[in-house]
Amino acid sequence: MAALILHEYANSGNCYKIRLTAALVGVPLDRREYDILKGETRTPAFLTQINGNGRIPVLQIGEKLLPESNAACFWLAEGSPLIPEDRFDRADMLRWMFFEQYNHEPNIATLRFWLAFVGENALTDAQRASIPARRAGGDAALAVMERHLRGGAGFFVGDRISLADICLYAYTHVAHEGGFDLGAYPAISAWIAAVARTPGYLPITA
Amino acid sequence: MAALILHEYANSGNCYKIRLTAALVGVPLDRREYDILKGETRTPAFLTQINGNGRIPVLQIGEKLLPESNAACFWLAEGSPLIPEDRFDRADMLRWMFFEQYNHEPNIATLRFWLAFVGENALTDAQRASIPARRAGGDAALAVMERHLRGGAGFFVGDRISLADICLYAYTHVAHEGGFDLGAYPAISAWIAAVARTPGYLPITA
Repeated sequence: MAALILHEYANSGNCYKIRLTAALVGVPLDRREYDILKGETRTPAFLTQINGNGRIPVLQIGEKLLPESNAACFWLAEGSPLIPEDRFDRADMLRWMFFEQYNHEPNIATLRFWLAFVGENALTDAQRASIPARRAGGDAALAVMERHLRGGAGFFVGDRISLADICLYAYTHVAHEGGFDLGAYPAISAWIAAVARTPGYLPITA
Repeated sequence: MAALILHEYANSGNCYKIRLTAALVGVPLDRREYDILKGETRTPAFLTQINGNGRIPVLQIGEKLLPESNAACFWLAEGSPLIPEDRFDRADMLRWMFFEQYNHEPNIATLRFWLAFVGENALTDAQRASIPARRAGGDAALAVMERHLRGGAGFFVGDRISLADICLYAYTHVAHEGGFDLGAYPAISAWIAAVARTPGYLPITA
């Protein structure tokens, strides 16, 4: 396999997803850290050589570059049990991965980043004004997850872990850092514990 | 194949993506229309029977329900040339589909919906306050697309159409309805014309 380099900001749940997927499929990653608080992913060199969208993570596969965390997880997990073989289940896994990027990450990850890393006093007025909508959106996403897990078999797609779980876990298990109270979501809390018991699991701080 | 029903709001680009994918792979869809302006996807019946996330589209496959437009496109296109066979290209296709839902849709589709369907006078203050950021975000997404297409072989992944093109096309080709000037993006304009020449293509109004 070509050498794999993860261009990342280690505290980011989007980067952690990729590290966790790689660990669960047993693939080593080299890691290159960029401080997004210092704008290191918006430099001309980064924009021209790594990602014109100015964002991490980017998974480098030999000479090829793959932005978008969930796409990188998909590449890593191809052929592994983390992607269901059944056609509907595979699409249903992607359904939760798209839900994560649309309904979950912009609310829960953004509030975590603003409150735990940037600091509320350093936010712009527009950012601060959007907090109530992001708080409501994040709780709505958690409520959708809670109802789904209550009616299910332990994981998002069936009874075994898939990329759907890994991608949703990344920011859900640290949602309290964004001010979300996971005590209100018992099925999510049980699922978080189940993901962390997966053989090969590593924490976001690893 | 199980009967396919698309639960939709026909003007939505997210719903159109699914119709276009189905047309290109030659699969018929039954269609059920919901007026999102009248809250028809937030009724108790819709939330319990169709999608607890209160959103269209949902692709119904026999008794199973698949929300998230890009996941539904993936299900429909499995085994067709719309999904590249090469492992990197397949992940790169998903990369653009996640980009679409994260960087493109919340800006370009939202402004189109607000300005062309809801009406600017009917927006809330918070919605109106977010217009400049969405305008800038939409133009940034278009700029990323323009640069990529300029350096490429005509489509987002290589030299043939894939789901990456279909999913990005849906809201890009009507971006002017949200006040975006596609005249500033010549590579995007050429690509829009190329997508519309695909055998089996149907317009958003079909």
